[in-house]
Amino acid sequence: MNHTPLPPTLPDTDRTRHRRLRDQGSLERAALDAVLDAGFLCHLGVVVDGHPMVVPTVYGTDHRNLYLHGSVAGRSLIASPRATVCVTVTHVDGLVLARSVFEHGVNYRSAMIYGVPRPVTDPEEKLEGLRLLTEQAAPGQWDHARRPNRRELAATVLLALSLEEASVKTRSGGPDDGDGPDAALGIWAGVLPLLSTWGAPETDPLLPPGIEVPDHVESREGTRLG
Amino acid sequence: MNHTPLPPTLPDTDRTRHRRLRDQGSLERAALDAVLDAGFLCHLGVVVDGHPMVVPTVYGTDHRNLYLHGSVAGRSLIASPRATVCVTVTHVDGLVLARSVFEHGVNYRSAMIYGVPRPVTDPEEKLEGLRLLTEQAAPGQWDHARRPNRRELAATVLLALSLEEASVKTRSGGPDDGDGPDAALGIWAGVLPLLSTWGAPETDPLLPPGIEVPDHVESREGTRLG
Repeated sequence: MNHTPLPPTLPDTDRTRHRRLRDQGSLERAALDAVLDAGFLCHLGVVVDGHPMVVPTVYGTDHRNLYLHGSVAGRSLIASPRATVCVTVTHVDGLVLARSVFEHGVNYRSAMIYGVPRPVTDPEEKLEGLRLLTEQAAPGQWDHARRPNRRELAATVLLALSLEEASVKTRSGGPDDGDGPDAALGIWAGVLPLLSTWGAPETDPLLPPGIEVPDHVESREGTRLG
Repeated sequence: MNHTPLPPTLPDTDRTRHRRLRDQGSLERAALDAVLDAGFLCHLGVVVDGHPMVVPTVYGTDHRNLYLHGSVAGRSLIASPRATVCVTVTHVDGLVLARSVFEHGVNYRSAMIYGVPRPVTDPEEKLEGLRLLTEQAAPGQWDHARRPNRRELAATVLLALSLEEASVKTRSGGPDDGDGPDAALGIWAGVLPLLSTWGAPETDPLLPPGIEVPDHVESREGTRLG
């Protein structure tokens, strides 16, 4: 593994430069890490036969690489193994309900990562990538569940996408039309927050009685994602 | 507007055929409508300079068309106005925590729509598309907020994507390793649900006192999205 410190600022490329709404854009690596840490699902964009295909999939990260299950991108990768992909991670924080429809919007945090994914073939990195992927969604499960055996490891296609070319966009706060002419309309305006919360664990009915919900799962009930 | 009844089954094309996990796939139009009705955010995939770009954006629908704000896709549409896009809508319902790491997964509902978006130029359709887009995220806001004026309408780029070529994938229920050899391990397994809930409305601090939160906003607090 590479342990060289990463520069705190991401490169400004044609793809990551913010063309619209510049005030919402960031190329800070810390902002990217924060968006990635807050979730576990991404949308992977690939080009298949010249057309885009966008697939939801889970990810894990060590903040240098994004690890992705290769299966969902399989079609595309077989067709063009050196092709660029775009991975987007989005958290919706709420609706911005302005005085005018035109100023309505969404509070969100989003990251877009571009790169050519590398198939992970080294068994040690593959195991570590799967650990990161598992722990991203379900912290504690790697030590709790049965880990992949040699056969399962061989059957798993894991991809690593370097976190070199990426950008972050966010919007937060209230509506923007509170100091314009529409303020005189007397129309209620504000934000309706959207919260992602873990629910009560549902035990598999096939489980024999007497096996308790483990702490690392039970303790998440009622906590927020993101 | 076209009022011809739509066939209940979506066409089986190279792009919508389910190649993996066939049991999770559906080409029923009712399944597509249900996924679209359950949310308001999609990930729009476009090809820019031969590379994919995946952008989060809001949508509205009359179940024939998906209406999208053109601004986010602007770069791509200017470059190639007749290009195919892929729009993906995903709802995450929970984590599937199996006995083995290999069987871990996500419960979700997802729709993928392919097509060439059409810029909406007719003012009546544009207004109706914006109404659908607004009401999808915030029911009641169209009648509450100030509607777009002529200038705002002209400044808005709205796209319509026909819901002709689409597919749905879902996963629900518990882990799949409850009747295999791993069942003997005595490891807890089940589902950890993830819930999206609307929070308490936050009034814009710039609003003068005495303007109450309207019913159509206040009544959403504590209700589920999706």
